[in-house]
Formats: sequence, structure tokens, C-alpha cells
Amino acid sequence: MPRTAETASFKFNHTMLRVRDPEASLKFYTEVLGMDLADKTVHETFTLYFLVFNYGNEVTDGTTRFGREGVLELTHNHGTESDPDFKGYASGNSEPGRGFGHIALAVDDVEKACERFERLGVKFQKRPSDGKMRHIAFILDPDGYWVEIVKGYYP
Amino acid sequence: MPRTAETASFKFNHTMLRVRDPEASLKFYTEVLGMDLADKTVHETFTLYFLVFNYGNEVTDGTTRFGREGVLELTHNHGTESDPDFKGYASGNSEPGRGFGHIALAVDDVEKACERFERLGVKFQKRPSDGKMRHIAFILDPDGYWVEIVKGYYP
Repeated sequence: MPRTAETASFKFNHTMLRVRDPEASLKFYTEVLGMDLADKTVHETFTLYFLVFNYGNEVTDGTTRFGREGVLELTHNHGTESDPDFKGYASGNSEPGRGFGHIALAVDDVEKACERFERLGVKFQKRPSDGKMRHIAFILDPDGYWVEIVKGYYP
Repeated sequence: MPRTAETASFKFNHTMLRVRDPEASLKFYTEVLGMDLADKTVHETFTLYFLVFNYGNEVTDGTTRFGREGVLELTHNHGTESDPDFKGYASGNSEPGRGFGHIALAVDDVEKACERFERLGVKFQKRPSDGKMRHIAFILDPDGYWVEIVKGYYP
């Protein structure tokens, strides 16, 4: 039930992260994580990439990427990928810049997903076997953003 | 269609932001934006708040907040709300700490939503009438994180 009629249509549509090299990021988010590139808009100084899981299952009422939840928007400011002076983006998890924490994927089998990430050479911030919380993991995307891997269903 | 069987179960479950004062943030995300508090877990040094739109519409297969997309996780590290030396969190949109950009809500009427935000005293980073992009707005949450307001449907 929506809390009020005024907010009844609201959805948590997307999260935006800046990325240094779209080629590396798209490879990670599509090939490693399995997202689909739903849309791409090229502007004069930047390009936006919109990624979702299971693209094509949306309602077809005149929109796709705006009418659903769980969209990831990657912003590429042109030139960062080849600029030797570019320092990279802060992941948000250390000073300076602490604030943003992570994005998270729900999967049906954390161990199996992480074995596959290992095979694909993905960097880990925390393997399931590290620390006390054995049921979750954190992998790193090409910019160092944390991606939590958590079990989605407890059937 | 999932890209591979290995990623078929994956969902973009949540985005995590650190907040200074959970009372102010919960008021903003529930009363202003209309989200529901779906879950809260209290730990020794921090508390996690999980917010979603339209809580209660989930499949009831043993899970709620882990089995869907569009969850916002707010992390409160205990004490920040009353620590005079706490500097606040970086929004990610200026140096230092640039990287994370924003979260976004899809709404059916951007103008009407923004008129209501004005009435509620919400701070704007960009009103619909500012700049060239008249169809979107950015409001600020209590920590200064940007929340984009975008039209969800084009019927």
C-alpha cells in the first residue's frame, strides 16, 4: 500500500555511479554480473549507460528504463579512460569521500556465485570465508566500488 | 532473458548510503518520498534501515527485502547524530569523494511531485525550471545526497 496518494506512483528507479573506463565497466556489469545494457545516451562531454537485469521483461507501456526499479546508471565523462592524470573515483568507503557504501546483488547461491567470480578473476573485498559473516561477500567493480553479494531467497 | 544460467537469479537488490541522523533521514525517506521501512537491524555500533516503495507487495516465499529490487539501505553509525566533531558525509558530487552520483525516483508527474516537495520545505539542487533539462529535478536528502526526480511513464 502506498503511504499517500501523492507518492503512489513513486519508484526507486536507479542508482548512478561515475566510471573511468566504460569498456571495463560494461564488461564487468554485463559479462561478470549478467546485467543487460538497456539504453545508452551520448552527450557532448559524457555518455550514460543504463543497465538492468532481465531486460525485456518490462511492461511495454511506452517506457522501459524509467518505469522500473533496479536500474544502474553508469556515467562516463569522456576522456577519463585515457587521462594519465585522472586519479580515479572514490568508492565512498574510505576518507576522503566516505558516504556512499555499495550496491548489492541478490543471488540464489552466494557460494556458487563467488566461485564463478573467482574463476573470472574478479577482485574480492570480502570472500564468504573472510570474517564472521559467512553468508555475504563483497566484490569490487573496475573502479573499486563495492558490490555486495547476498542470498535473495530462503525457500 | 537472463544472459547465462549462472546469473539467472541475480537481482539489483539495494543501494547503501551512510546517514548522520536516522531520525531526519527516516522522516525524509518515508514522509517526504513515501517509502516504507521494511526492516531494521540493530548492531553493536551501527543500525541498518531498509526502505522500499509499496512494502507488502513482495512475494511471500520466506523473504522480503532480499528478494526484490529497489531497496535503499541506510547505515547509521551510532553517535554521528550528536557528535559536534562529525563533519558529515560526502554526497559524492564534489571533490574530495566524487564518484557516487545519486539515487533516482520515477514519478508519474515531476511538476506535481516537486510542488509538493516545495510545500514540505525540501531543498533543491535543481528545480525543473532550472537549466535546460526541464523534465527532471534534483532534491537533497538530509545528508546532501542528490535524489533525482524523473518521469516514470510516458503513456
